[in-house]
Amino acid sequence: MSVLIKNGTIVTAENEFTADIYIQGESIHAIGENLEKEADEIVDAKGKYVLPGGVDQHVHFSFTYKGSKVRGFETSNAAAVGGTTTLIEFVNQVQGKGLVESIDEYRKTDADGIAMVDYSFHSVMTDPRPEVIEEIPKLAEAGYPTMKLFMAYKGMFFHADDDAILNALFKGKEAGITVMVHAENAEMIDVLTKKLISEGKTAPYYHAVSRPPVVEAEATRRAIYLAELADAPLYVVHVSAKEALEEIKQAYGRGQSVYGETCSHYLILDTDDLARPGFEGAKYVCSPALRTEEHRDALWEAVDKKWLNAISSDHCGFDYEHQKHMGFGEGNSFADIPNGAPSLQNRLNILWTYGVCEGKITKSRLVDLFATMPAKINGLSKKGQIAIGFDADIVIFDPDYTGTISAANNLEGVDYCPFEGFEQKGRAETVFLRGGKIVDGGKYIGQKGQGKFIAGEPYGYVYNK
Amino acid sequence: MSVLIKNGTIVTAENEFTADIYIQGESIHAIGENLEKEADEIVDAKGKYVLPGGVDQHVHFSFTYKGSKVRGFETSNAAAVGGTTTLIEFVNQVQGKGLVESIDEYRKTDADGIAMVDYSFHSVMTDPRPEVIEEIPKLAEAGYPTMKLFMAYKGMFFHADDDAILNALFKGKEAGITVMVHAENAEMIDVLTKKLISEGKTAPYYHAVSRPPVVEAEATRRAIYLAELADAPLYVVHVSAKEALEEIKQAYGRGQSVYGETCSHYLILDTDDLARPGFEGAKYVCSPALRTEEHRDALWEAVDKKWLNAISSDHCGFDYEHQKHMGFGEGNSFADIPNGAPSLQNRLNILWTYGVCEGKITKSRLVDLFATMPAKINGLSKKGQIAIGFDADIVIFDPDYTGTISAANNLEGVDYCPFEGFEQKGRAETVFLRGGKIVDGGKYIGQKGQGKFIAGEPYGYVYNK
Amino acid sequence: MSVLIKNGTIVTAENEFTADIYIQGESIHAIGENLEKEADEIVDAKGKYVLPGGVDQHVHFSFTYKGSKVRGFETSNAAAVGGTTTLIEFVNQVQGKGLVESIDEYRKTDADGIAMVDYSFHSVMTDPRPEVIEEIPKLAEAGYPTMKLFMAYKGMFFHADDDAILNALFKGKEAGITVMVHAENAEMIDVLTKKLISEGKTAPYYHAVSRPPVVEAEATRRAIYLAELADAPLYVVHVSAKEALEEIKQAYGRGQSVYGETCSHYLILDTDDLARPGFEGAKYVCSPALRTEEHRDALWEAVDKKWLNAISSDHCGFDYEHQKHMGFGEGNSFADIPNGAPSLQNRLNILWTYGVCEGKITKSRLVDLFATMPAKINGLSKKGQIAIGFDADIVIFDPDYTGTISAANNLEGVDYCPFEGFEQKGRAETVFLRGGKIVDGGKYIGQKGQGKFIAGEPYGYVYNK
Amino acid sequence: MSVLIKNGTIVTAENEFTADIYIQGESIHAIGENLEKEADEIVDAKGKYVLPGGVDQHVHFSFTYKGSKVRGFETSNAAAVGGTTTLIEFVNQVQGKGLVESIDEYRKTDADGIAMVDYSFHSVMTDPRPEVIEEIPKLAEAGYPTMKLFMAYKGMFFHADDDAILNALFKGKEAGITVMVHAENAEMIDVLTKKLISEGKTAPYYHAVSRPPVVEAEATRRAIYLAELADAPLYVVHVSAKEALEEIKQAYGRGQSVYGETCSHYLILDTDDLARPGFEGAKYVCSPALRTEEHRDALWEAVDKKWLNAISSDHCGFDYEHQKHMGFGEGNSFADIPNGAPSLQNRLNILWTYGVCEGKITKSRLVDLFATMPAKINGLSKKGQIAIGFDADIVIFDPDYTGTISAANNLEGVDYCPFEGFEQKGRAETVFLRGGKIVDGGKYIGQKGQGKFIAGEPYGYVYNK
Repeated sequence: MSVLIKNGTIVTAENEFTADIYIQGESIHAIGENLEKEADEIVDAKGKYVLPGGVDQHVHFSFTYKGSKVRGFETSNAAAVGGTTTLIEFVNQVQGKGLVESIDEYRKTDADGIAMVDYSFHSVMTDPRPEVIEEIPKLAEAGYPTMKLFMAYKGMFFHADDDAILNALFKGKEAGITVMVHAENAEMIDVLTKKLISEGKTAPYYHAVSRPPVVEAEATRRAIYLAELADAPLYVVHVSAKEALEEIKQAYGRGQSVYGETCSHYLILDTDDLARPGFEGAKYVCSPALRTEEHRDALWEAVDKKWLNAISSDHCGFDYEHQKHMGFGEGNSFADIPNGAPSLQNRLNILWTYGVCEGKITKSRLVDLFATMPAKINGLSKKGQIAIGFDADIVIFDPDYTGTISAANNLEGVDYCPFEGFEQKGRAETVFLRGGKIVDGGKYIGQKGQGKFIAGEPYGYVYNK
Repeated sequence: MSVLIKNGTIVTAENEFTADIYIQGESIHAIGENLEKEADEIVDAKGKYVLPGGVDQHVHFSFTYKGSKVRGFETSNAAAVGGTTTLIEFVNQVQGKGLVESIDEYRKTDADGIAMVDYSFHSVMTDPRPEVIEEIPKLAEAGYPTMKLFMAYKGMFFHADDDAILNALFKGKEAGITVMVHAENAEMIDVLTKKLISEGKTAPYYHAVSRPPVVEAEATRRAIYLAELADAPLYVVHVSAKEALEEIKQAYGRGQSVYGETCSHYLILDTDDLARPGFEGAKYVCSPALRTEEHRDALWEAVDKKWLNAISSDHCGFDYEHQKHMGFGEGNSFADIPNGAPSLQNRLNILWTYGVCEGKITKSRLVDLFATMPAKINGLSKKGQIAIGFDADIVIFDPDYTGTISAANNLEGVDYCPFEGFEQKGRAETVFLRGGKIVDGGKYIGQKGQGKFIAGEPYGYVYNK
Repeated sequence: MSVLIKNGTIVTAENEFTADIYIQGESIHAIGENLEKEADEIVDAKGKYVLPGGVDQHVHFSFTYKGSKVRGFETSNAAAVGGTTTLIEFVNQVQGKGLVESIDEYRKTDADGIAMVDYSFHSVMTDPRPEVIEEIPKLAEAGYPTMKLFMAYKGMFFHADDDAILNALFKGKEAGITVMVHAENAEMIDVLTKKLISEGKTAPYYHAVSRPPVVEAEATRRAIYLAELADAPLYVVHVSAKEALEEIKQAYGRGQSVYGETCSHYLILDTDDLARPGFEGAKYVCSPALRTEEHRDALWEAVDKKWLNAISSDHCGFDYEHQKHMGFGEGNSFADIPNGAPSLQNRLNILWTYGVCEGKITKSRLVDLFATMPAKINGLSKKGQIAIGFDADIVIFDPDYTGTISAANNLEGVDYCPFEGFEQKGRAETVFLRGGKIVDGGKYIGQKGQGKFIAGEPYGYVYNK
Repeated sequence: MSVLIKNGTIVTAENEFTADIYIQGESIHAIGENLEKEADEIVDAKGKYVLPGGVDQHVHFSFTYKGSKVRGFETSNAAAVGGTTTLIEFVNQVQGKGLVESIDEYRKTDADGIAMVDYSFHSVMTDPRPEVIEEIPKLAEAGYPTMKLFMAYKGMFFHADDDAILNALFKGKEAGITVMVHAENAEMIDVLTKKLISEGKTAPYYHAVSRPPVVEAEATRRAIYLAELADAPLYVVHVSAKEALEEIKQAYGRGQSVYGETCSHYLILDTDDLARPGFEGAKYVCSPALRTEEHRDALWEAVDKKWLNAISSDHCGFDYEHQKHMGFGEGNSFADIPNGAPSLQNRLNILWTYGVCEGKITKSRLVDLFATMPAKINGLSKKGQIAIGFDADIVIFDPDYTGTISAANNLEGVDYCPFEGFEQKGRAETVFLRGGKIVDGGKYIGQKGQGKFIAGEPYGYVYNK
């Protein structure tokens, strides 16, 4: 099978140029001017941008809240139509089981044969027994070279104390496992939440009040100190507060290997959304909480200046009608609303419409944040770039398309979209996954199970290199 | 009863001048040149310095380790001969009891009628039940306006989690209670300790390795973030690492009300002492651990520049033969050595000999750090200054005395002195406690129970004002 | 001659207490409760505050602009009624003459026998020939241990290049001469001024636009680097921009001996005053320029937190009708308006009314900023404190007085007051200069020439010690 | 003419992969696996690295000292054998002439028809008359979009005062001209130089003493403030002191567009070289001066972490026998030695041997620092990358070569090499300039005049984007 994409403007993290791309089998075989190749399929990309398929390094398909589960890999075609061809899912260690075992089992039942784009996994250590700590290096062999710990969520089984993080850092270093943290101080949140509820402040909006920026900044700083002690790299997921960002920037400036991502919703939503009338705000309950304009501006500057090196979705498909409503009514509060929002499909739309079109980032920065760097961070050595020998995950992007973001057009399987009504400029018109066309004319045309597992390499992690 | 001290060089935190002091009853009545006063006793202080009696804001007379108790108030005459006339003792809340109740009971049985200098108390909250949090403001009424929490010591009943600290800060604010923290990350210490012991590194020296500067810096930074959230002042006790000091300096520079003290032993001892042959190092096991020369230099600069505002003793009278030896022998390690060292008597000697005589601080800075500021910090409004209406706690200091520091000359009731063999220049020759002479010719001549309780005022706390 | 001031509340930089003060001859002889002293005069100060007479370390009595001179020492009684008993005047070196010679001559003709309060001098080096550099240490012997250099004012004879400053720092160090700088980048101002004038922006308001905060911040940072190279202390006069303040704070935090003052007008006036209609703004043309509210807030915080250690007047008595109008009319611009404003009389009024009464600083901080620290900075060892043996410069301050600040009540000899119409709370009711009453009931009752020269001591300079 | 380079490992700033490169005419036509192309020449690069030809953005071919000129473009084949295919030369404005005119004239007489690699120019403004300031935007049209100013060298015609820099920043912004500075405080150097000479300290080593790191840090900070005022980007050339580096890093961290380069000699030489016996040290006299190991380490970290974004040579071909000796003998001093050292040929050798082989930077970082970023910085849109449509400037690098750096092997035309005797690993075996082979087997085989002028585009300047 071969494909020839002709005359598109190829955008890489480094540059833009017009050339043809020749795909042979699953990978990129040649790039050049007027490639005189015969191909099974020839696509004319004149006037279009040709981007590497996106890598979304922060996705939740397995999260459950009070026994109720989010939408899973059966909705991963939403990623495809959004130009994302690789997902990385966080899999919680099952209590009493091993880290690798927990992922392997989940993968077999919930991903293999179902996923519609490629996928990889992060381990979430929830049960840091000594034997589990000892197991950490084995994640590398299994192709799961990244591990997250939750500093937030006091009292939940997946909350991690500092000793677990420190042990993970020490042990992970032995095998090139990158430690990631959800950085929020669980105790601060607990004190504030109780205080707010005791004062009758239970509406969704108070979710943000219970987790102010200092909550994120403190935990970020603490994780940085832990990484300093272990002399190990650290990755901070979903940075949303400028104070946390500042801690990361300062740490990197002191020479520590500390990096972070932000997420698409922090770039265009804010606390006003949480304050929407009625119970509408519940749609915007995610952690860390949405922030104010000042933070949004700081985040755009940070992704432009490389102080943060990736933009993920933190997609979490809880629906509004049943799941978000667990926090509704007498006796409930914002603290009972499951955290997270669906955003799998719109990452590229947001970055293009509100980033590139508004002059906040260049097209090359978009590619780097959306695809190239997330692949590097997670050791996916054949993903995220348009270069010879790389997987032929390619997006042909039509900059002239205009539309409106809406749940109605979503494949996420959720009854609302947090970006409902937002203007959309451009779209992923055609998408190839390892050489196979899975999106055509903006419609998903692939097959269930077409995605395959991609093993990560240890300390794939590199920053702007 | 009246006393006239003639011709001495009075040193205050502001200046030096030669004048007479006239004491009537328990307080300073007049200061002037050639006061023509009749007095019951006239003391000629020509050629001597006249200093306010010291206030030692960090003393342990009630600490116990595995059921074994330190020396108590019956040894408080050691303070007197060292020029200290007021002590502030940390009293742990008894589990299941109230904060005020715990101090009141201790005071009755262990201090009143025993103390040989004046005394006040800090509460140590160990049992932060909601009703105890609610009780916090009552400390102010009882004259105990300061409260400490231990961030260190994982697994001990007196360890405090962040929620306890945050609640204390919020609640303390209501009544002007200053929150103090022992800032060391308990989890880091726990991980490092287990690692060291598993590697057979059990000698006293490894105490310092198990609590490196980052342990102190992290907890200091975290406490500062907690105080920022509560918008409340914070006092960091026994600062020993320059990184922790830097966090305090930066916080103050950002406008937060964050302050700290250091202790006399951190200014002249170091990790070499911990590395002494045999089990000798155990004498130097205290927390935070002794540091290296670089940190010592930073601390001297900090007390000179007012980045730290008091020097206390952190006196802790465990003996060597029985108590320190609890960490000796098969199956034991540095982690089994009770923490703390006796230093009640030598605070002024150290500050004068190694501070003033070596040009590190001026005499006025000594007075500020030794007496004036500790009184202000703790709301002791009649202590720590030579000024009209203040308690007549006065030290006549002979700068010409020379001697050697030794346990043999100590009244601390402990079988060793960490400063054994150190040169001593000058001494407190005569000491008055509220107008009564309690030291004469360097010898204690007072009576058991002569000291009285001094109530502190809320937020006495002021920094360099 | 003796005076007994009874029952006043004495305020020092350290504390407040009620006591009597007994003055014998020119100095303070005794302080005490109910001093039973006979005295030539007894003053009842019950209900009043007793403060040390102020020291104003930044005064211009000799400045000339295009041949036109400011009001001089003949108006120094304005200081007296404002509670200031010592002035320090900047004397420009006369081109071709020596530093000491220039001050000596000025002093003889313009100060001795005229001044109505005590006075001292700063040298301003304007002609840094090698022999003048060599002369610097002689300033110490002459009692002039401080020297200022103007980084601003490109093209004026008194502008100093970096080499002059660096040489002054190196040479001054040899004899304990404190180097002070007027820190504004002359080149930036020149470029901006030309640009504004070329655009027709000539109104007084553009004075501020031609000297934005960055102008001050840059020069401050540069002077700090020069002082670092010379390893010498540095004093920055009239700090007005928060960015400059931040540079000073950071330098002190790194361990450099860098300090600064601000002035009373920067604490209550702002750029709105410069924008007053007509030519009114000219009254507010001073350098550095007035700033916005954000800077004012930063300055109040800085004097409270000891990041700046003195508040001076920078008094400059140019009148409005003739002198300020040199910048009026066709062909003139803001750049032709003589810089400076009259403020000799109202320093204490401003600090009390807008500082103490509004809770921005305590009374003790006022005393420190107004009197104690300026005396220390300039080596005036008998000034600025109420303490035994110090000069009996004393202000009896009535906190119950209320009035309105107005040129009509001023002794400054200038036809306007920049604080016209501002509310005034409290006033210096009675003022003693070395034991002699010079103000009574708020009226000046002293004599011309009653003030005397006070020699400064080298590196009197100490910061908050 | 066509060339096919087969089987090499292509290294870009983003990645490494094995592929063939097909060159048609002067540019890169295709990259791919097993390209089945016919070509005039086929080169087997198996086992070799294929790098983009280097861009050296800091070269001096026109510098003169006391009438004596450095080697010029006739030695530019030295660049070629060192893997550098584009040079950017600094051309001083001739006094009384225009900026463009000065470059145009120099180019005609000294570069066109002579250069053996491609070349571009930076303007050096030396005569900032108002009409010259007005001319600045015209540099863009002429293809010279970068301009340098010398903050160092007091008294020399090319020294620039702050007003010239500020005017350049304001005016340059109008047309996308990047302002570069040589950042050293000329006044500090002047004072220190006079002091050293007066003390008889005249040996080459004192060159470093006369220009300590603070000299560079201050000027860097000042330039950053000037750029802040103009709201314009700033580029700092030849950063050598870690304090200067810190200022740049901080500025970028605050959001300013401030960037800098370092040079190859600062990465492997140090002050010990300046202290070599006899007059040998003169070979190492360059400005800024060589630093100590601590600074070298900081620079390696900085180029690795992207705190500096290019490594240039600052090549300056003064010979030792005659030109360096102008500072030799009675009446002369280090201040009479012409500044600069020859280093055109060894930039890649140093970066590979001491950077890549010692693990300080990756191969991709080398490519970025050596070629990709210097091209972007200077708006050379077809240089510095191996990508479709870019100029076919290609280095085939043999990593297995070993040798010794020596003047004997140099084409620089100078009688010494500052890196004499240094080990060399790897070499540029074959070099193509726009598709033409100019180096074969490490030997220069091209022709005089083969290089052509490359116009830069305005604000080509982008940082790590």
